[in-house]
Amino acid sequence: MAKIIAIETSDVRFPTSLELDGSDAVNVDPDYSAAYVRVRAEDGETGHGLVFTAGRGNEIVVAAIESYGHLLLGRELDDLVGDLGAAARLLVHDSQLRWLGPEKGVTQMAAGALITALWDVAARRAGKPLWRFMAELTPEQLVAAIDFTHISDALSPDEALQILREGQVGKEERITELEREGYPAYTTSPGWLGYSDEKLVRLSHEAVVDGFGMIKLKVGGNLEDDRRRLALVREALGADFPVAIDANQRWDVPEAIEWLQQLAEFEPWWIEEATSTDDVLGHARIREAIKPMRVATGEAVQSRIIFKQLLQAGGIDFLQLDSTRVAGVSENLAVLLLAKKFGVPVCPHAGGVGLCELVQHFSFFDFAVVSTTKDSRMIEFVDHLHEHFAEPVRIERGRYQAPRLPGAGAEMLDASVERWTFPEGEGWREIGDRAAVTGASLEFDRR
Amino acid sequence: MAKIIAIETSDVRFPTSLELDGSDAVNVDPDYSAAYVRVRAEDGETGHGLVFTAGRGNEIVVAAIESYGHLLLGRELDDLVGDLGAAARLLVHDSQLRWLGPEKGVTQMAAGALITALWDVAARRAGKPLWRFMAELTPEQLVAAIDFTHISDALSPDEALQILREGQVGKEERITELEREGYPAYTTSPGWLGYSDEKLVRLSHEAVVDGFGMIKLKVGGNLEDDRRRLALVREALGADFPVAIDANQRWDVPEAIEWLQQLAEFEPWWIEEATSTDDVLGHARIREAIKPMRVATGEAVQSRIIFKQLLQAGGIDFLQLDSTRVAGVSENLAVLLLAKKFGVPVCPHAGGVGLCELVQHFSFFDFAVVSTTKDSRMIEFVDHLHEHFAEPVRIERGRYQAPRLPGAGAEMLDASVERWTFPEGEGWREIGDRAAVTGASLEFDRR
Repeated sequence: MAKIIAIETSDVRFPTSLELDGSDAVNVDPDYSAAYVRVRAEDGETGHGLVFTAGRGNEIVVAAIESYGHLLLGRELDDLVGDLGAAARLLVHDSQLRWLGPEKGVTQMAAGALITALWDVAARRAGKPLWRFMAELTPEQLVAAIDFTHISDALSPDEALQILREGQVGKEERITELEREGYPAYTTSPGWLGYSDEKLVRLSHEAVVDGFGMIKLKVGGNLEDDRRRLALVREALGADFPVAIDANQRWDVPEAIEWLQQLAEFEPWWIEEATSTDDVLGHARIREAIKPMRVATGEAVQSRIIFKQLLQAGGIDFLQLDSTRVAGVSENLAVLLLAKKFGVPVCPHAGGVGLCELVQHFSFFDFAVVSTTKDSRMIEFVDHLHEHFAEPVRIERGRYQAPRLPGAGAEMLDASVERWTFPEGEGWREIGDRAAVTGASLEFDRR
Repeated sequence: MAKIIAIETSDVRFPTSLELDGSDAVNVDPDYSAAYVRVRAEDGETGHGLVFTAGRGNEIVVAAIESYGHLLLGRELDDLVGDLGAAARLLVHDSQLRWLGPEKGVTQMAAGALITALWDVAARRAGKPLWRFMAELTPEQLVAAIDFTHISDALSPDEALQILREGQVGKEERITELEREGYPAYTTSPGWLGYSDEKLVRLSHEAVVDGFGMIKLKVGGNLEDDRRRLALVREALGADFPVAIDANQRWDVPEAIEWLQQLAEFEPWWIEEATSTDDVLGHARIREAIKPMRVATGEAVQSRIIFKQLLQAGGIDFLQLDSTRVAGVSENLAVLLLAKKFGVPVCPHAGGVGLCELVQHFSFFDFAVVSTTKDSRMIEFVDHLHEHFAEPVRIERGRYQAPRLPGAGAEMLDASVERWTFPEGEGWREIGDRAAVTGASLEFDRR
């Protein structure tokens, strides 16, 4: 037995805004960042978690992780890891902190980082990467780890148990297949709004050569630009190669429908975040209006409760789970099961800092035990910042290769954390004030 | 012209958990708190804002206010106050901070406190209490202050303009009426779960004697307790006196329907927060199932986008605006106009710290210019902590009396802020570790 004696947080930021990597119609100048946490017990055992953010405000998430961390300090790590469902509820449903959400925004993400750190410990103790650790838990253990509060009208514990029991059939073969072949990926790297036409076409060709099954373009800044860029890509890749588009919540509902009708001829594979992801009814209305174009969302969806409604309302064709937006591993599991229940494929959001490293575990687990298929399923891939992780993702022939190291994938290299700690790290001191994080986007919108 | 040179924040908490004031099925032990901010210009001019919280985590909101405050530091106060719509968008839509919501939770509340502080300055400059300052703006000025992003499918700027123009007719008479007669209130003071039956009955009688038009009981802890308490209140007050009930999101959808069927015989005026307020579809389903019982929600609704859907889906009969949950004065205005468009009465959430002082301005404004009626409309009232404000609410014969002091109502007394600053204020040092905020509710849920 060992008590938790430290919640060590770091405000880690990378100056991606200098290159316009990650630029879209809404996120015009992100500095990809991680609110990073190490949960440490008195015997040195450590769990790792993180929240991805866009730069400014990373310090708020760090503060929130520290506040939630107080609920863990002094507890026996064995108690928490021994009942991960109870541990998650302890954080998510704290009677006073709950007011700050409930279950949304900064506090949901902060609780998630700590919950993920506890799962990280559990997987390390088992000597397995998280996906495999989860796949080898019994259906009963998995259901005990999930919080069914406010989703039981759509997915009861018994239904979840049934899904997971059915998922035991053929599990070993699917695990073997995952270890041999990996899991399909698509890439967003060619399609950032800040890139030139030449760079777009060049990177699109490269994506095909690299074996990716789809590319994704950011849209929603300017209609003529969107049409020109889509035409260029269709010319380069042909009519049949899957090309998704992503508006990053740029439109209101009527505007989305009009704009998308102007892009329909390019036959996008899906339209992602056509409007506010809080707008369940708006998504359903857009989906109905633009059929057969398909609708995706999820990277900004705060909880299982909103995902439940997107599924109930028929608002989405693809569910884009974000590993650090919801409350950690436990809530990711709930969302995978909801998607299975409604027959909607999960194509996780990735990129940013560490999202690829984290979310791959959920897709691998999904194939092993939940959906048991890869049809219409891909994990997003963006080739940024992987070198800062203890186990960087490995992409071969356009496929994620199975993670091997024990744990949840969130562990960063000490040297990276130190160099890019904001604002005092060496990296930031060398850059000085050139990055957006120091105020480049603070111009007052006077209209 | 004077630049903003300071964003002064305070973590103010009151040890209300010691008395079980404010206890309900979910918020079992709140320490009513305020993340308080003063926005100060170099010439000393100051605007006041706050966010109400339940204790733990108040420090996270304070951190978020400071982070958002960086976007205001160094700007001309005149520029911000001269275009309050642009000022709100500057905060709410900051390209990097937006990731942390978007528009929900800690960041939405923090932006709201600063936006309210700017409106506070505007109203003070005009020498008027906020409700009257807003009522005397032109329809065009009000519409310019509102962010229609992601609600234009339900309420366009033109429709808002039309509502506000119609609201000009008879406005002066309604303002005179408000100043003479005030605005109806109901009280939650008798109905906290932590109170004994004797205290419940005694305070219920007192509420009627005091002239309140309704009382509200917390429910959802235990069905037999709920039935006993409702029977006691019906016996004490008769069959016709309005008695609302409030479950504070305690139930899942099927459980809500079953439980409420067991309470229907007591004919509650409304059921508040029957389930997660994020669950738009769940609210609609519950409302359909328990008719003619009426459904209310709003104190935890994060933004105009969720309110829009609650209205579109037919999920609510009463809209319970919370002045510090959404993004300040500007978003409160948007929600009032949405409610008017859909014909749903606004009965604001109040209580906590400062909510009564703030939200009364919106109901007074609503009557003056938007709904132009008080039918089925009341402001919640809880008799706590008013003495800490520069202008405490005045309740006479069960009615809120028109605020008179210039400003938005958020200004706290310096002595109160100092005494109850957590943890170093004199009040907290005297209490020591007896309050929930220091850990009383941290018991691990082992099941």
